[in-house]
Amino acid sequence: MADPAQRRADALAIFQAALRAADPGRAVRHALALEGDQLAVLGQTYPLKAGARLVVLGAGKATPAMAAAAEAVLGARISAGAINTKYGHTLPLSRIATVECGHPLPDQAGVVGTEQMLSLLQGSGPDDLVLCLFSGGGSALMPAPAPGLSLEDKQATTQALLACGAPIEEINAFRKHLSKVKGGQLARLASPARVVSLLISDVIGDRLDTIASGPTHPDTTTFAHCLALVERYQLRAKLPAVVCRHLEAGAAGALPETPKAGDPCFVRTRTEVVGSNALAIAAAATQARTLGYQTLVLSSRIAGETREVAGVHAAIAQEICATDQPLAPPACIISGGETTVTLHGQGKGGRNQEFALAAALQLDGWERVTCLSGGTDGTDGPTDAAGALADGHTLERARQQGLSAAASLRENDAYPFFDALGDLLRTGPTGTNVMDLRLLLVS
Amino acid sequence: MADPAQRRADALAIFQAALRAADPGRAVRHALALEGDQLAVLGQTYPLKAGARLVVLGAGKATPAMAAAAEAVLGARISAGAINTKYGHTLPLSRIATVECGHPLPDQAGVVGTEQMLSLLQGSGPDDLVLCLFSGGGSALMPAPAPGLSLEDKQATTQALLACGAPIEEINAFRKHLSKVKGGQLARLASPARVVSLLISDVIGDRLDTIASGPTHPDTTTFAHCLALVERYQLRAKLPAVVCRHLEAGAAGALPETPKAGDPCFVRTRTEVVGSNALAIAAAATQARTLGYQTLVLSSRIAGETREVAGVHAAIAQEICATDQPLAPPACIISGGETTVTLHGQGKGGRNQEFALAAALQLDGWERVTCLSGGTDGTDGPTDAAGALADGHTLERARQQGLSAAASLRENDAYPFFDALGDLLRTGPTGTNVMDLRLLLVS
Repeated sequence: MADPAQRRADALAIFQAALRAADPGRAVRHALALEGDQLAVLGQTYPLKAGARLVVLGAGKATPAMAAAAEAVLGARISAGAINTKYGHTLPLSRIATVECGHPLPDQAGVVGTEQMLSLLQGSGPDDLVLCLFSGGGSALMPAPAPGLSLEDKQATTQALLACGAPIEEINAFRKHLSKVKGGQLARLASPARVVSLLISDVIGDRLDTIASGPTHPDTTTFAHCLALVERYQLRAKLPAVVCRHLEAGAAGALPETPKAGDPCFVRTRTEVVGSNALAIAAAATQARTLGYQTLVLSSRIAGETREVAGVHAAIAQEICATDQPLAPPACIISGGETTVTLHGQGKGGRNQEFALAAALQLDGWERVTCLSGGTDGTDGPTDAAGALADGHTLERARQQGLSAAASLRENDAYPFFDALGDLLRTGPTGTNVMDLRLLLVS
Repeated sequence: MADPAQRRADALAIFQAALRAADPGRAVRHALALEGDQLAVLGQTYPLKAGARLVVLGAGKATPAMAAAAEAVLGARISAGAINTKYGHTLPLSRIATVECGHPLPDQAGVVGTEQMLSLLQGSGPDDLVLCLFSGGGSALMPAPAPGLSLEDKQATTQALLACGAPIEEINAFRKHLSKVKGGQLARLASPARVVSLLISDVIGDRLDTIASGPTHPDTTTFAHCLALVERYQLRAKLPAVVCRHLEAGAAGALPETPKAGDPCFVRTRTEVVGSNALAIAAAATQARTLGYQTLVLSSRIAGETREVAGVHAAIAQEICATDQPLAPPACIISGGETTVTLHGQGKGGRNQEFALAAALQLDGWERVTCLSGGTDGTDGPTDAAGALADGHTLERARQQGLSAAASLRENDAYPFFDALGDLLRTGPTGTNVMDLRLLLVS
């Protein structure tokens, strides 16, 4: 295992294991099983009486692949289905209708598609079951302005909140209270049917009230909370008047509040994350252990400036080399999450390639270390690579080609650097997104 | 242990254990023992024949404390001694002479003090023993320009190298080849006497050829290497002519090269790090385990932009809370090294206080986490605190006082923030420096 080529092969195998775990179709196929008139979801069974309806809904970029898997498992038992996805993301489906719509900016097509979903819920009975399939982009791809509001009203509200520096939790409170499906309201619309939601999470922390704005999960925010924020940020003049009136009416009790924990609509609702960075990391860790590496999961929640985060990772690899801490080699450190890049140059690359480049600089000459950073969507930044690999020989090999890692990092130009070395990580688009994975292998 | 007050007390106890391990006097007292006519150094014995000389030399900010400990152990057995330290850092000594001199810029007083040390080595015999005590600042505090060169020549060379972006390893190659003591040359001057060097390291990685510029350790660089760098960086016109002539004479074999591994002068030379970030971390880990925490040493080599490094640490604490990874609570994560702060504001603080502030922002509401960041020298930035403590309640308590953590971080103004909360870490100046320690406690 001391051989760099072996470590590289192992890193690729570990990353592939993570991609398999993040595959939306595979995740849904593993979650669902139809046994006679019983639907089993991750071990729990739901009887499907003759005549009871099984409706499939959902929104997100990976939702067509989830829907295809649901069709493969449930087949003719699906009574009806409707999903929204991003333009160009449609897959062939036989029982579930797909509407393509705008992302990241929602559009009217999305509103129409959402209305189509809601129409399938009309007349739901207690024996019916609604299977919801949400994935990244699900919030923008399932727009449903509350009665009296328009998409533009919601957009203007979000812009005003962003401009005053409101944190994302506060922006989400508004989103939920200007929508008729977000913040648990879809569960209420589906009631009294049973609701099972399967989620692929592309956000740090995998909060069920955050993924796709939590359409089937209890909300913790209120109209009164939103109104207080309007005052705190002095937004009254900056928001559409109709939005302020809507929030005031809600706070006065004239509109239904989003359903809270304990609301009867959640008694028969279940929400499961079937794909996430944490699950991909767990699969990577299993693969790494199988390959003989002592393995440590650092965190699935790592954000921050990419090159700085890479520096911390490289320092951990160096410590392993020097002192067998935090664990002895052969060792594999795994982390996940999604970092950012502050652009200084005009180069070509992505955050994962930049991570590998910054790590290569710090690990120059550290012969026992290999690093891989890859995006699970397979497309890192505006490139055709998922990320890159680096090790203690990267800079030496680059020098032999007349390449400067320092100059490439300065210019945010990691792509041509790793392309020339043959060290880009290429998977092609994977059809999923559970953020990034970083591997450090030390032998 | 779930109680924040308990975690805080534990964090302080763990930090104190690290400070004890980093105490230069204690480290030297533990390293040395005089038993009759035998000097024991960390378990290895050195016979001291009647009439053989025991000479103590050294340079550094903590070297007076190391020398006082040597006097306490060795007493009248010390034949003579001379050390250099920074202005204002003298301690009362009875057998070892102290010269105060310039740091970080070396001055003529340092040159005089170094000459005084070298005079003690004249006529050394094989039964003599030279005990060297080096600590942070030892390189600047032991200036000894090679014959024909001046302090100004060395200074101008360093400036020119810094200006062209040369890395520290390359600058050190010049320093060693423009000096008559650095790069192992002190060991050659002391030969045929035995040489034992005890080091307190304030640099990441504790490289023996780097600490105090490695006066008693084999060098790996050459005059020819330096000349090649002059050409690569096109420095010929920028360096004093006398420096170029010196390097050319050296490369031509007209001057002695620094001694390399295998040189006879190192046969009887031994170098031990008795104080370092890694040793302080090890003591902290022992204390944490004693207090019942599952403990993980992340790395002693962590550098980088402070708030970004804090973000990675906070993400690890959050992962422990969410998934018991990388280890289950009660858990203690320890890291060391020295970060930097890019100043954006005009506030008061230091890197450790900024670390705690950035961590507090990310850990708001995470009730099971406590964070401590402290400098082992006891003076973090231009403040009278060593660092600060933060936990999941820090922001809530700040809000109650009308303080904004985000605004304080924006202004690099952590000191007043933590001062108002009573959460500054105050140790007073400790007389040592083995960089910083960061603790994350999760219960």
